[in-house]
Amino acid sequence: MKFKSPPVNSLSLDFLTEFCISLEKLENDRACRGVVITSAIPKIFSSGLDITEMCGKSMEHYAEFWRAVQEMWLRLYSSNMVTLAVINGSSPAGGCLVALSCDYRIMAENPKYTIGLNEAQLGIVAPFWFKDTFVNVVGQRVAERSLQLGSLYPAPEALKFGIVDELVPEEKLQEKATAVMAQWLALPDHARQITKSMMRKTLLDRLVAHREEDIKNFTSFVSKESIQKSLHMYMEMLKKKKS
Amino acid sequence: MKFKSPPVNSLSLDFLTEFCISLEKLENDRACRGVVITSAIPKIFSSGLDITEMCGKSMEHYAEFWRAVQEMWLRLYSSNMVTLAVINGSSPAGGCLVALSCDYRIMAENPKYTIGLNEAQLGIVAPFWFKDTFVNVVGQRVAERSLQLGSLYPAPEALKFGIVDELVPEEKLQEKATAVMAQWLALPDHARQITKSMMRKTLLDRLVAHREEDIKNFTSFVSKESIQKSLHMYMEMLKKKKS
Amino acid sequence: MKFKSPPVNSLSLDFLTEFCISLEKLENDRACRGVVITSAIPKIFSSGLDITEMCGKSMEHYAEFWRAVQEMWLRLYSSNMVTLAVINGSSPAGGCLVALSCDYRIMAENPKYTIGLNEAQLGIVAPFWFKDTFVNVVGQRVAERSLQLGSLYPAPEALKFGIVDELVPEEKLQEKATAVMAQWLALPDHARQITKSMMRKTLLDRLVAHREEDIKNFTSFVSKESIQKSLHMYMEMLKKKKS
Repeated sequence: MKFKSPPVNSLSLDFLTEFCISLEKLENDRACRGVVITSAIPKIFSSGLDITEMCGKSMEHYAEFWRAVQEMWLRLYSSNMVTLAVINGSSPAGGCLVALSCDYRIMAENPKYTIGLNEAQLGIVAPFWFKDTFVNVVGQRVAERSLQLGSLYPAPEALKFGIVDELVPEEKLQEKATAVMAQWLALPDHARQITKSMMRKTLLDRLVAHREEDIKNFTSFVSKESIQKSLHMYMEMLKKKKS
Repeated sequence: MKFKSPPVNSLSLDFLTEFCISLEKLENDRACRGVVITSAIPKIFSSGLDITEMCGKSMEHYAEFWRAVQEMWLRLYSSNMVTLAVINGSSPAGGCLVALSCDYRIMAENPKYTIGLNEAQLGIVAPFWFKDTFVNVVGQRVAERSLQLGSLYPAPEALKFGIVDELVPEEKLQEKATAVMAQWLALPDHARQITKSMMRKTLLDRLVAHREEDIKNFTSFVSKESIQKSLHMYMEMLKKKKS
Repeated sequence: MKFKSPPVNSLSLDFLTEFCISLEKLENDRACRGVVITSAIPKIFSSGLDITEMCGKSMEHYAEFWRAVQEMWLRLYSSNMVTLAVINGSSPAGGCLVALSCDYRIMAENPKYTIGLNEAQLGIVAPFWFKDTFVNVVGQRVAERSLQLGSLYPAPEALKFGIVDELVPEEKLQEKATAVMAQWLALPDHARQITKSMMRKTLLDRLVAHREEDIKNFTSFVSKESIQKSLHMYMEMLKKKKS
């Protein structure tokens, strides 16, 4: 599965909806046992949640958007397929979440590409299930420090802190992905799936149990004047950068 | 304590029963403050649960066997003694669990010896308390990846991932074991025991609370036709290997 | 904030009370967004809880003392400020707890300085919230092993096990502290504070919920004849060492 939503694969409502539909199709396709998630856009895996969806919209829109973000994570984190993130570019915030939710992460060996949950730098807070997904990958300490600082790690540091599992020269990513997928698919599906579910169930159940509350938190937080202001400023900054 | 149940120290019902009795005796012997667990059989620490106990037997037998596996772990993981695993050979599945349940693990520096919870490779699933014991040693991420892949790690990798604490050349294992045990026995028993219990109580309580349910899960899982088939196939493969 | 309570910055009832008042003042001072905790006494950060407060005193005194220890931790661990420990000397037991409760730890690169929760060596047991604070920094396995052995780690090992985040030559500590604090203060306070609280809330709530029970445990434990005896012996040993 190749993300291709120019210019930066930001996770808009449309993009998330399509992503979920694709995942569901593959999930129900018995011939498909694994999925590789990567980007068709050079230098960027995914820029994360689309900030335009969080700016100057109605409460209903915020709620619909957030439900789509939750849905994407619930499907991806609980997928019965082998999920492999091939991170061939930068991957901040929501883009990092997509990668963290896979079973294995290979990143291009390029220190210009960064990855991390940098929400704090934007003045916003990663929700508890972003945090818990992160803790499940890197442990409590690295998560606490990284989330507070909103750290974006260049690929070599991302490997050091365990955010990704392996670095590979960019031109060898595909070859490596094929080898890793083959290794995972060599296992009997049934045992692998039950094992995965056993490891992830607590966290998945937590969001399912608090889903509406989490939506309320998001909508009331994002609609605050101060937050709207800083998101606007951030968007202006991005626009200037582009031009 | 030296495991000696040829050919491969597999954890049969008899073996587990004897192991528990020995542990209990030592536990009640005030003169005994620590125990070293190692193998008298070259190249193998323990091959894990005896598959013949899970193949073509009655539901009652499966239940009795599983209760013995639980009992062994409950005693070992909660032992008041210092428990030191000297892993002088390969140690898959249940053999790895024995090692993980000790206070400290020394392994022979031999890349031919492997260790890990490889249940998934056999098409079966490590129960939750195997998983939790593993997580308590290596953390959530390494556990998730290793359990899904059913990874068996050569000694150097086992050290890298924290499955064992130290590698020592095989001829120096005994010397090292003596030194490590002396270090642990230098602590006042009372404080060490309460500390250990504080660290392990949550997990021990979890199995005690769900013991019967866990037995039911095991017996209904292992008696499935598909599982019986793959265990039979695995046993045939082992027999061919031997001859 | 510089600890200066000769000879060894031990955490006496008076010291803890003053520490809490200072923290509260800074917390309420809007101009103060971060605090550096270090020692004005050469070679020692803090020697930990003052043993004279636990020896030959009344039950009421023990309770009052323990409540002050809890209060210090509750304030420090939940502080809205950026808390930076600059560990310019040894830091056993309660001294280590102070460091572990900060957001970031820089230690002088001197192998003569040691740090750790060495309670077990004194025949006492670190309470559950010392343990949980430790687990949140170094993970379950390192905590289990270190607490059972009462390990004091020289600075280089403390870095290796993740007890501290960075080692710096002693003469560069101040410069480094300024740089690190600037990095943390570059983040918007609000997002950083909510993130921190999200990471630490579970543990803080646990002590608040069991505070009286924890005081009872401490007073009944410390007033035991056997514990009083070993604390007395330890104090005599310290006195001899000094003279």
